[in-house]
Amino acid sequence: EGEEQVQVFLDAVEQLEASELGLLLESLPVSERRALWPHLPHEARVDVLVAMRVEARDTLLSVLEPAQMDQLLDDLDAESLIELADNLSEELVDQALARMDSQQRTWYRESQEYDEEQIGRYVDHDVVVLPPNARVAAALRMLRRYQSAFTDRAYVVNRKGVWLGEVTLHALLQAEPDTPVRHCLDDEVVPIPADTPVLEAADRIEHADMSMLPVTDEGGRLLGRMTVRLGMEIVREHYEGQLMASAGLDEEADLFLPVWRSAKRRALWLGINLLTALLAAWTIGLFEQTLSQVVALAVLMPIVASMGGIAGSQTLTLIIRGLALGQVTPGNALALCRKEIGVAVLNGIVWAAVIGAVTVLWFGSQALGGVIAGAIVINILVAALAGVVVPMVLDKLEIDPALSGSVILTTVTDVVGFFTFLGLGTAFLLG
Amino acid sequence: EGEEQVQVFLDAVEQLEASELGLLLESLPVSERRALWPHLPHEARVDVLVAMRVEARDTLLSVLEPAQMDQLLDDLDAESLIELADNLSEELVDQALARMDSQQRTWYRESQEYDEEQIGRYVDHDVVVLPPNARVAAALRMLRRYQSAFTDRAYVVNRKGVWLGEVTLHALLQAEPDTPVRHCLDDEVVPIPADTPVLEAADRIEHADMSMLPVTDEGGRLLGRMTVRLGMEIVREHYEGQLMASAGLDEEADLFLPVWRSAKRRALWLGINLLTALLAAWTIGLFEQTLSQVVALAVLMPIVASMGGIAGSQTLTLIIRGLALGQVTPGNALALCRKEIGVAVLNGIVWAAVIGAVTVLWFGSQALGGVIAGAIVINILVAALAGVVVPMVLDKLEIDPALSGSVILTTVTDVVGFFTFLGLGTAFLLG
Repeated sequence: EGEEQVQVFLDAVEQLEASELGLLLESLPVSERRALWPHLPHEARVDVLVAMRVEARDTLLSVLEPAQMDQLLDDLDAESLIELADNLSEELVDQALARMDSQQRTWYRESQEYDEEQIGRYVDHDVVVLPPNARVAAALRMLRRYQSAFTDRAYVVNRKGVWLGEVTLHALLQAEPDTPVRHCLDDEVVPIPADTPVLEAADRIEHADMSMLPVTDEGGRLLGRMTVRLGMEIVREHYEGQLMASAGLDEEADLFLPVWRSAKRRALWLGINLLTALLAAWTIGLFEQTLSQVVALAVLMPIVASMGGIAGSQTLTLIIRGLALGQVTPGNALALCRKEIGVAVLNGIVWAAVIGAVTVLWFGSQALGGVIAGAIVINILVAALAGVVVPMVLDKLEIDPALSGSVILTTVTDVVGFFTFLGLGTAFLLG
Repeated sequence: EGEEQVQVFLDAVEQLEASELGLLLESLPVSERRALWPHLPHEARVDVLVAMRVEARDTLLSVLEPAQMDQLLDDLDAESLIELADNLSEELVDQALARMDSQQRTWYRESQEYDEEQIGRYVDHDVVVLPPNARVAAALRMLRRYQSAFTDRAYVVNRKGVWLGEVTLHALLQAEPDTPVRHCLDDEVVPIPADTPVLEAADRIEHADMSMLPVTDEGGRLLGRMTVRLGMEIVREHYEGQLMASAGLDEEADLFLPVWRSAKRRALWLGINLLTALLAAWTIGLFEQTLSQVVALAVLMPIVASMGGIAGSQTLTLIIRGLALGQVTPGNALALCRKEIGVAVLNGIVWAAVIGAVTVLWFGSQALGGVIAGAIVINILVAALAGVVVPMVLDKLEIDPALSGSVILTTVTDVVGFFTFLGLGTAFLLG
C-alpha cells in the first residue's frame, strides 16, 4: 500500500504547482507526510515548504537530517527565508544568510525592518528598475529579457533609489527609441508605504485594479513591489484567520497536529469558556430556592439564553463585517444601534409570543408563559445592544472582535437570560 | 449639517474609486444614501451601483425616478447589466438590452447560459483576439492601442473562435515583425471551462500565478477572460459568505436594511434555533422528577452543554476549513476522527477533573462531582465525533456546512449533554 501511495504522490508532483503540493502534504497524517517527503524532488522542496502552514511545515523540518537541512539552506533566497524563518533556529537562519549573495542578504535585512502585519515584510524584488535618463530602447531591451509573472511595467527611481514613477510597456512601445524614460513616466501611481498593514495593502491593490504596485520606505525609497497575487493570499489568510479565531483556533493550525500539542492548544479556549459557563451557573445558583419550587423554570431556561445568543450573534456578525470593511464608524454607530434595536423589538415580540404560547400549552400556566415572554424580549434587546457595542469597543481597544466577540456576547446573553428569567420567575411565580 | 455632508461626499467622489464609493454609500443609513445619490456624477453611477451589495443597491434603484432610470439604462453594457439584472424587472432588462449594440447583447446572452456559481457568467471581454496567421507587427500594433488593466497578452483563436493558445507581449517583442503569431504561441496555458464553479476558478488563477486566464465553452470556443482581480473578489465574497452564513445571514445583507425586512429575514434563523432549543428543553423535561430533588443539577447543567459545544465547534471549524480546501477527503476521514477523538479524550479528562473538583468544593458532594465529570467526558467525546462527521455528511449532501453545521452540532451537544448529565444524576444521586 505504501508503494502505491508513493506512485500517486509522484504523479501529483508531475502535475501540480508547489502551492498545491503543499496543500496535499498538509492533508496527510504526519507519518505519511514524512514518508513521502524524500520522494519530493530537491528543487521543489523550498517552494512546497513555503506553501505549507507554519505548523504543518514544522512536522517536516523538525525531523530533517543534517545533510538534507544543509541542502535546503543552500536553496533559500531572501523571500523563502522570510517565510521559513519562523520554523528555523536563529543559528540556521544565520547559516542561510551566510550562503546568500549580498543583494539577497540586504533584501532579507530590509524585510526584517517591518513586522509580520506590515506589507514591507513581504515585498518582492522581481521588478525592472530604471534611472530616469535611461532610453526607451534600453528599457524595452531589459523588459524583454525579463520573464516574470505580472511584469508589464518598469519602475523609475533616482540615484538615491527614491521612487519617481512607473513606465508601462504600452507607453514604451509608443515612444521613440531614444527618448529618456522620464518622458513616458506615469507619476499618478501612488506607492504603498512599507508600514501599511497587509490587509489595507490588499484593499489598495484590489481597488487600484493593477497587477502590481510599488512599495516604498518612509524616505520614499523603492523597496520592491506587491503583486495582486500576494493580495489574494493576504485576503484568503485574513478570512481563514477570522473563521478559525471564532473557535479559538489559529490560522496556522495543522489538521494533523499531534494529539498532545493539539489538546494543549485548544485547552485555553475551553478554559476561558469554562469561566463564562461558571458565571452562568453562579447566576442560576442565586435562584436555587425558586428552582426547587418551580422545576419548569429549569426546563425552560436554556431557551431564553439560546434565543438571546442567536439574535446577538446575528448583530455581532454584521457589525464585525462592517468594521472589517471600514463601514462601521463612530459616525453611524448610533444609527446602527437604533436599527438593530428596532429589529430586536420586532423579533423579540414575535418570538416571545410564540414561546409564551408554547409554554402555556406545555405547562398549563399563564403566569409562566408571561414570565418567559418577558425574559425573551429583554434578552433579545440586550443581545442586540451588546452585538453593536461589544465589537466596537473591542475594535477601539485593538482586540480582534472575531476572536473574543462571541465569547463575551454569549456570556452577556447567558447571564442576562438566566437572571431575568429566574428573577421574573421569583417575582411572579412563588407562593 | 446636510450641506456639510454633501461637501464631504463630493470630496470623496473626487478621490475614491467607484468600488470605494460603493462601500461608502453602503455605510450610510438609507435616507442619507438617497439624499447623496443625486450628487454622484452620472458617469460614475453604474460603476458605483455594481460595486454595491444587491440589497444596498436596491435601496437606491427602487426609488429612482423614471428619467434617471432611463439614463442609467443607456449607460449599461453587458458586464454591468449582468451584475444589476437581479435588481431590475424583466422589462427593464429588456429595455437595457434593446439599447445595446449587438456585440454587447451577444455577450450578455452568452453569460446567461451559466448560473451564478459558474465562472462563464462573469467572463470579461477586454482581450485582444488574433487569428493564427496575424503577423507579429500587426499584433503589436493592436496591443499597443489597447490600454486596459492586465493586458500583456493576446489570445489566438481559429476561424470558429476555438482557443489555440496565447501570445505574450514578451514573446512578440522578441520575434521578427513579419512572423505569423502562431509561431510564438504558448499552448501550455490551460483555459478554464466556463462551467467551472467560481471558487475553483479563483483557485486556478491563484495557483497559476497569472494575471488572466482564458475561459472557453464546452466546444473549446473562447468566451473571454478571467482576471486575478475577479479571483480576488470571488475569494473575498466566498469567505464573507461563510462568516455571514454562520449566523444565518446572507452575504448580500445590507447593514441598513429597513428594520421590518431585516427582522423578517432573521426570524427564520431564530425559528430554527427555537426548534433545537425546544428539543433541548424537552430532554431536560424528561428529568423533572430528578431536578426537583437535586436542584444543583439545574445549576450545573449549562456547563456540560457549553463545554461540549465549544469542543465540538473547534473540531467543526477545522474540518470545514479542510473541506473547503479539499484537504479533508474520505481517504483521511478515519485518521482525522482518530486524532480528534484523541484530543477529546485528553481535554475531556482534564476538564472533567477540573469541573468535578469545582463541583465538590461548591456543593460538597463527591457523587455530584463524579456525575458531572462523567457527563463532561462523554459530551466532549461525542462533540468531537460529531464535529468530524456532521460537516462531512453535509458536504456529501451538498449542503454548505458553514451554514447549518454549527446548528446541528449545538443541538447534538445540548441534547447529549443534558441527557447524560441528568441521566447519570438520576442513576447515582437519587435517594
